[in-house]
Amino acid sequence: MIHRLTLSDVLAEHARSRPRVTAVVDGEARLTYPELDERVTRLADALAARGVTAGDRVLWLGRNGHPVLELLLASSRLGAIFCPANWRQSTDELSFVVDDLTPKVVVWERSEAAAPLSDDGWILAGDGYEAFLSSGSPAARREGAGDDTLPVLALYTAAFDGRPNAALLSSAALVAHSTALLVVRQMEDGFTFLNNGPLFHVGTMMFCLATLQIGGTNVFTPAFEAEEVCRLIDAEKVTQAFLFGQMIDAVTEANRDGKYDLTSLRFVSHSAEWDAMTTVDDSPWCRSKMGGYGQTEVGGMLTFLGLAPGAAGFAGRPSPLVQVRLLSSDGSEVPSGEVGEICARGKSLFSGYFNRPELNAEKTRGGWHHTGDLGRREPDGTITFIGPRLRMIKSGNENIYPAEVERALKTHPAIADAAVIGVPDDRWHQAVKAVVVLKGEATAEDVVEHVRARLASYKKPRHVDFVEAIPKKGFTPDYDALDDAHGGGGYPGS
Amino acid sequence: MIHRLTLSDVLAEHARSRPRVTAVVDGEARLTYPELDERVTRLADALAARGVTAGDRVLWLGRNGHPVLELLLASSRLGAIFCPANWRQSTDELSFVVDDLTPKVVVWERSEAAAPLSDDGWILAGDGYEAFLSSGSPAARREGAGDDTLPVLALYTAAFDGRPNAALLSSAALVAHSTALLVVRQMEDGFTFLNNGPLFHVGTMMFCLATLQIGGTNVFTPAFEAEEVCRLIDAEKVTQAFLFGQMIDAVTEANRDGKYDLTSLRFVSHSAEWDAMTTVDDSPWCRSKMGGYGQTEVGGMLTFLGLAPGAAGFAGRPSPLVQVRLLSSDGSEVPSGEVGEICARGKSLFSGYFNRPELNAEKTRGGWHHTGDLGRREPDGTITFIGPRLRMIKSGNENIYPAEVERALKTHPAIADAAVIGVPDDRWHQAVKAVVVLKGEATAEDVVEHVRARLASYKKPRHVDFVEAIPKKGFTPDYDALDDAHGGGGYPGS
Repeated sequence: MIHRLTLSDVLAEHARSRPRVTAVVDGEARLTYPELDERVTRLADALAARGVTAGDRVLWLGRNGHPVLELLLASSRLGAIFCPANWRQSTDELSFVVDDLTPKVVVWERSEAAAPLSDDGWILAGDGYEAFLSSGSPAARREGAGDDTLPVLALYTAAFDGRPNAALLSSAALVAHSTALLVVRQMEDGFTFLNNGPLFHVGTMMFCLATLQIGGTNVFTPAFEAEEVCRLIDAEKVTQAFLFGQMIDAVTEANRDGKYDLTSLRFVSHSAEWDAMTTVDDSPWCRSKMGGYGQTEVGGMLTFLGLAPGAAGFAGRPSPLVQVRLLSSDGSEVPSGEVGEICARGKSLFSGYFNRPELNAEKTRGGWHHTGDLGRREPDGTITFIGPRLRMIKSGNENIYPAEVERALKTHPAIADAAVIGVPDDRWHQAVKAVVVLKGEATAEDVVEHVRARLASYKKPRHVDFVEAIPKKGFTPDYDALDDAHGGGGYPGS
Repeated sequence: MIHRLTLSDVLAEHARSRPRVTAVVDGEARLTYPELDERVTRLADALAARGVTAGDRVLWLGRNGHPVLELLLASSRLGAIFCPANWRQSTDELSFVVDDLTPKVVVWERSEAAAPLSDDGWILAGDGYEAFLSSGSPAARREGAGDDTLPVLALYTAAFDGRPNAALLSSAALVAHSTALLVVRQMEDGFTFLNNGPLFHVGTMMFCLATLQIGGTNVFTPAFEAEEVCRLIDAEKVTQAFLFGQMIDAVTEANRDGKYDLTSLRFVSHSAEWDAMTTVDDSPWCRSKMGGYGQTEVGGMLTFLGLAPGAAGFAGRPSPLVQVRLLSSDGSEVPSGEVGEICARGKSLFSGYFNRPELNAEKTRGGWHHTGDLGRREPDGTITFIGPRLRMIKSGNENIYPAEVERALKTHPAIADAAVIGVPDDRWHQAVKAVVVLKGEATAEDVVEHVRARLASYKKPRHVDFVEAIPKKGFTPDYDALDDAHGGGGYPGS
C-alpha cells in the first residue's frame, strides 16, 4: 500500500502541491488542480451510483476534451477501466467495441456512426455529462480502489488477426511511461501541452499523461484546426503540441501574417518560417523531436532517439525503465547486427489485451513481450526499427492491418478471395490497394464502398485490381509476389 | 515478469545499449558496461558458490570503490540484500551490524575497528576480492531471481530508539528514485558522477544509482581529498560530485593556481572563484542544487526545491513518484498552514527495516509511511520541513515542537543560535523556555515578542536564558544537557 501511486493519487497530490496551477483548459472550461480533483470526486461518485466498481469498463465515444481525462481519473479512483474509443470509426466498428468491452457506462457525442447504437442509459457529452457529474457528491471522496498494477486505460489497437484488441494499461505502467517522457523530453514545471491529436491514440494520450504527471497544463481542442491551434498556443503559452509534417505547414500558413505569438512553443527545426515563429530547441535530446520506436502495448515509446545523440540506429536507445531484447523465433537472442523480433520487459508495459488470454500468453512467452516488430542492434548498441513482422500499411500516420481489410472485403457476396497491399502515395505516404478475385458482379466502386461502410474511412482501398487468383504461400497471400505484380511499397521501416 | 526491472536488469540493458560507454572508473580500473556486466556475472556465480541465495545478506566493510556497486548488482542478480556499512564506526558498532544482519558473505578492508571481528570466511578487499570474483564463471549468467519488489539494498539509519535499523530498499524503489532524480536534475546521456561522499549513506548512493540508471559513468574515490577530487574532475570530465560548503572551499583552494580544468562540473553558484572555475548552472531546477527534504526510508529525496521555483516552502514539492500527506497524531490530514507529521506513499519508498516487524507496522499505520519529521503545507502547496517530531512539549494541552520554535527564533537578526526546551509549569503543565545565543542586542521581551508575532501564542517562550553556546550532539542541540542546565522537564510520556 505504501508503494501505490495510481493516476488518481497523482491528481490527489497535485491538488495539494499545486493549488493554483491550471490543470485543464477546454473552451470555456478552466480548472485548477483542486477544481479538477473535485470534479473527479463527483464523477467517481456518480459512476459508483451507476454500479461501476473495480474492473468495470467506462467508454467514451467522442472527440477530444477534458471529460476524457476526467473519466480516466474517476475510473482510476474506482479501480475501473476507461476506454476512449476512436470516434472516426464506422457503426460496425463501434458496435464491435461496445460488444467486446461491455461497458457499464457510455458517454457519447452525437455522431452518425454512434447514433444507431445509442441506448437509453448512454450519457450525452456536454450538458448530459455535466448533469451526470453534478449528481455525484464532492464529499464522497474515495482514496482509490485496489493497487496501481490494475488496468485503468484500454486503447484499441493491434488488429493483426483481423479484429482490434484493447490493450490494457495500468496506472503503474502509465506513471512509469510518463516519467520516462519527463526524463527524455526534460518536461518541467509550467509545461503546457496542446492535445490536438486524437486521445484514443497513445501518441497524444502519452503526452497528456506526462503533463499531468509533472503538474502541468493540458489544453484540449476537439481536433486539429490550424488557426485555432495558433490561437491556443498564443493564449495559453503552449510548450508543446502534437504537430508534424503537413500540420506544421498548415500552422505556418495560418500564421503567415504573424497575428499569433507562437514563441512559447519549443520545437524541432522545420522550415525557416516555422523556426522564426517558434523557439527552436537545439538541445541534444530536443524536447519535440519525435524519434524512437513505440506502440500502445509498451505504454507509448519503448526507445528514444533523444537518449542516443548521433546514434547509428534511428530508433535510439531504450527508455530508462525498460529492457529490450532482439529475439529469434526460437526465443534466443540474436547477435548484434542481425534482425530479430523487438521484445521488451519493464515498468511501462501493458497488462495484456482485454479478454484475450490465449493471445496474451502467446505475446508474453518466455517472460518477454513480443512486439510483432523487427529490429536490429547496431554496433553502438542503438536500435534500428526494420518493420512489422506481420504486414502493416501506414497511411496518413494510421496503422492499417491487411488482415482486417481483407476480412471486410471477403464479406462482399461477389468476392471470392482478396488480399491487401500498400502502394506508395504522395499525400498519405501509403495507400491501400485491394487485389480481388470475383465470384459475381462488382465494380471497383462497389468494393471500395463495401469497405467504407464497415471500417474507418482511412482503411478503405483507394485502388482495386481484379485478378484470377491470389498467389499464396501456404494458406496466406504471397505478399512479396503481390507487391511485385501490383506496385506495392513504401511500408514502414522500409 | 514482463514488468520486472531489477538493478541487474538495468545493467544487462546497458551492456547491450551502451557497449562502449565507461561504466566505472576507480584508480587503475576502467570498465565499460559489458565489462562491468561480466564481472557482476562472475561475482554472482562466486557468491552463489558460497551459498548466497534470495534473501541472504552480503556485507561490505570498507571505503568507497567499485566493489560496492558490483556487490550490489551481483546481489540483485541473486535476489540477495547488499549492505555497505559505515566503516568509520567503532568495533562495537560494527559488531552490532554483523550480529543484526547475519550476513552470509563479508568483504572487508583491513581497519582497526573491523580487525577484532574478522572471520576466516571474510574476504579481504583488493586482491582477495579479485581472486573471489575470478573464481566465478562468466558463463554462469543468471537472469535475476525473484521480482523487483524484493529488497536489494540495506542502509543503516534511524537510531531513534537507541539502535540503528537497516532500511531495506527494493530494486523497484531504487529505480523509481533514480528516475525522479533524472527528471529533477535533468541528468542525461554522458553524465559522470564523482562518488566522493560515503556510499553507506543514501546521499551519495542515490546519485551513484541514478548515474547507473541513465547509463552514465561512476567515478569512485576512497574518500574526500581536495586535490585528488580536482584531478578526477579534470581527467574524467566529471559532471557532478558530492560537494558542499567547506568541501567546495577546499577544492577551490586546491585549484587556486588553475592547474586543473573543472569546467565540466555543472554547479550551483558558490563563490566568485568557484563560479569562475566551474560551469554555473543557472537553470531553474539547477542540477546541483541540493534543496529538498529526504531520508533513507523514502529512497533518498521525498521533495525537491527544483520542482518549485520561487516556492514558499523551502523543501519544495514532492517527487513526481510519491504522495505526501501531513497527518496529525490521530491519522487525519492537518489543514494547509498547520504542522503535521510528514507522511508518504509512492514508488521510491523503502520496504521496512530489516527484522523489525513491530516497528514496521507502526511506521506504516494507515497505509502511510510516517517519516518521524514534521512539516507544513504553505498556501502555494509547497512544503516546509519543521524538524523531528520526537521531542515535543505539552503546554495547556497543546503540542509544541521545539524545532518549529527554534526555527522562528533563528529568524531574529540578533540571534546566532537557539534551542527550546520544556520546563515544568504549575498552570500549563509545561512552559516553553528558549536558550539563546546572541550576536547582537536583544532583550528577553524582544525574543518572546519575535516568536509571538510568528507563531501561535501558546508556542512563545515564557522564559528566555541567554548563553554563550548551545551544547550539541553532532548537528543537533544536546537536549538532555540543556534540560539539566536550564531546568527542563515534565515532557509528555516522561
